[in-house]
Amino acid sequence: MTSERSVPPTISEVAEAAGVGRSTAARTLGGYGYVSPELRERVLAAAERLGYRANALARSMSTGVSQTLGVIVADIANPFFGGVVRGISDASRARGFDTLVLSTHEDLDEEIAATNVLIDKRVDGIIVASAALDVASAGHIEQARARDIPVVLVDRAVPGLDLDAVVIDNRAAAREAVVRLLDAGHRRIGFVWGPPVQERPRRRRELIDIASKNLWTDGERLQGYLDALDDEGIVFDADLVMVGAKTEENAQAEVTRMLDLPEAPTALFCTENDAMTGALRALRARGLRVAADVSLIGFDDSSWAAVMEPPLTMIEQPTLALGARAAEVLFAAIDGEAGSTGLHTLVTRFVDRASVAPPPR
Amino acid sequence: MTSERSVPPTISEVAEAAGVGRSTAARTLGGYGYVSPELRERVLAAAERLGYRANALARSMSTGVSQTLGVIVADIANPFFGGVVRGISDASRARGFDTLVLSTHEDLDEEIAATNVLIDKRVDGIIVASAALDVASAGHIEQARARDIPVVLVDRAVPGLDLDAVVIDNRAAAREAVVRLLDAGHRRIGFVWGPPVQERPRRRRELIDIASKNLWTDGERLQGYLDALDDEGIVFDADLVMVGAKTEENAQAEVTRMLDLPEAPTALFCTENDAMTGALRALRARGLRVAADVSLIGFDDSSWAAVMEPPLTMIEQPTLALGARAAEVLFAAIDGEAGSTGLHTLVTRFVDRASVAPPPR
Repeated sequence: MTSERSVPPTISEVAEAAGVGRSTAARTLGGYGYVSPELRERVLAAAERLGYRANALARSMSTGVSQTLGVIVADIANPFFGGVVRGISDASRARGFDTLVLSTHEDLDEEIAATNVLIDKRVDGIIVASAALDVASAGHIEQARARDIPVVLVDRAVPGLDLDAVVIDNRAAAREAVVRLLDAGHRRIGFVWGPPVQERPRRRRELIDIASKNLWTDGERLQGYLDALDDEGIVFDADLVMVGAKTEENAQAEVTRMLDLPEAPTALFCTENDAMTGALRALRARGLRVAADVSLIGFDDSSWAAVMEPPLTMIEQPTLALGARAAEVLFAAIDGEAGSTGLHTLVTRFVDRASVAPPPR
Repeated sequence: MTSERSVPPTISEVAEAAGVGRSTAARTLGGYGYVSPELRERVLAAAERLGYRANALARSMSTGVSQTLGVIVADIANPFFGGVVRGISDASRARGFDTLVLSTHEDLDEEIAATNVLIDKRVDGIIVASAALDVASAGHIEQARARDIPVVLVDRAVPGLDLDAVVIDNRAAAREAVVRLLDAGHRRIGFVWGPPVQERPRRRRELIDIASKNLWTDGERLQGYLDALDDEGIVFDADLVMVGAKTEENAQAEVTRMLDLPEAPTALFCTENDAMTGALRALRARGLRVAADVSLIGFDDSSWAAVMEPPLTMIEQPTLALGARAAEVLFAAIDGEAGSTGLHTLVTRFVDRASVAPPPR
């Protein structure tokens, strides 16, 4: 049982209890202006003692600051974005901001609607993992900025858009992974998953064109794969690149198709978790062992990957740090401290476990 | 390149194009009042042709409906809640509502702050996976309802609170899982994870008391475990229940402790994914095989569980359906159609794979 009184205390009552002026209490509790650390401490202690809770709307009206960030992600059910949002909300909370999240299911129209909602809800800034592929489709982002709402991109850059973007170097991370497979002796390396087209692009140039018109991260990872093959002078084989729907089922079907090729791949690079689980299903159905028969490297480490038998070699993305950095960059813009915009590239970690071995025979 | 004109069409222009009156177009596009299916179709077709986009704020001011649901979950990085939110947002979108999500990290103070944000942002209804354990700690929920904002609970009921709650039958699902282990011949069955207390409760009554004061789902799952033991007349052994922090690391430590008991468990029931991966780490470190040495059943099926070797026997929660049902119940309340409140219990699925075998020897 709690003994909280039913009428919340006012700022004036908190000020009196803290022995400070009302404006000092208001600045402290509203999170604006300068207050010395000692006075801030006293006000916060008094506020806690009295059970003071700020009314965000009242605060918004008196200070012009609503103290909320808006976050738009492609798919909230993807643990990668779960981690990013957690990183954003932890960093926001430390600044006294709440975080409103909307999920767009990788659909540009939903992203536009979500941006409008956040503008209407008067958020102080927006972080978005955008499905926009170029400036022409990023009008909604420009609209937010035109209303003085700073926007920071996370996970994906939008080529040509003059905006801060907090990302990893997908191309370098993919290249590193494929180089590991090449170093282990593999020459036939499958790429799971590729562009979501029905017809298989046969030429390298065509494939790159298609990939660059799809999701930025996917295109970059494919480029990294091709970079690594180039390093070793290995000719790209269209049959070793998955096409079609980005689903676990299709990953399984495409890997099965690759395994049935006259020259089957001896290694697979999987760029998503569902690509990896689809590949594992295909291997199991063919009675093939991980590492001993087919080597595997995946993207987005997880606690599951570590307990597989054998444990999977994975690229770990700094999901919490991506979110935290995006929030930092956004707060700098909100505070009017923004410098020149650009890419903020965070480092991935190559988690070397036991799913890579030399090719059989 | 798109050829959209820069000035968006008005409701009147949509009405004219559809050949209907302005109020019919406004009702259709605003999502309120009655419109016949034929006229609705014509308005929506015209709106799409003209590229009409509702301005949520304008809509809110003219109709009093802001067209947003607020969702408060314990941890957005948990794929279970990712699925629930996806279910809510799919159902909301079908009704023309956007979904604002806040994550509370299983902290009641954050939940109170999140509720205040949603009240201030004037959402039309709130769905919450609450950390409140009783009516006394659910004042913020009553506050939302006092402002005529309907609230629906999801995943957890709050005992004593007269509110709709969309849940699964955690107790029955846990009981079923443990009965499977008993039927396979196991008598020493570990429970991973239990109440987050430091001191191990030695008496059954004490354990139930502590569990009932913790998270509702956890308490219910523990009850189901005890129910199944009761059925077989097996005396509860405090040493077979994990205590302490709900983390993968502690799950590993607690399972290791159990495996070192003079009478070690031959089966484990894991109530969360991190409990399962922690248990798998403990088994591997001891050189024990899943099924052959220790049988396993887990809660919350995933694509990873299906590709483990052997594939894991799991309880699958209907995450999307939990979200969709919660949204339905909330829309009924928003529409003023709410009947008597109560529990809405969805069915879980027992996914029988290969991690259960008779005890060794």
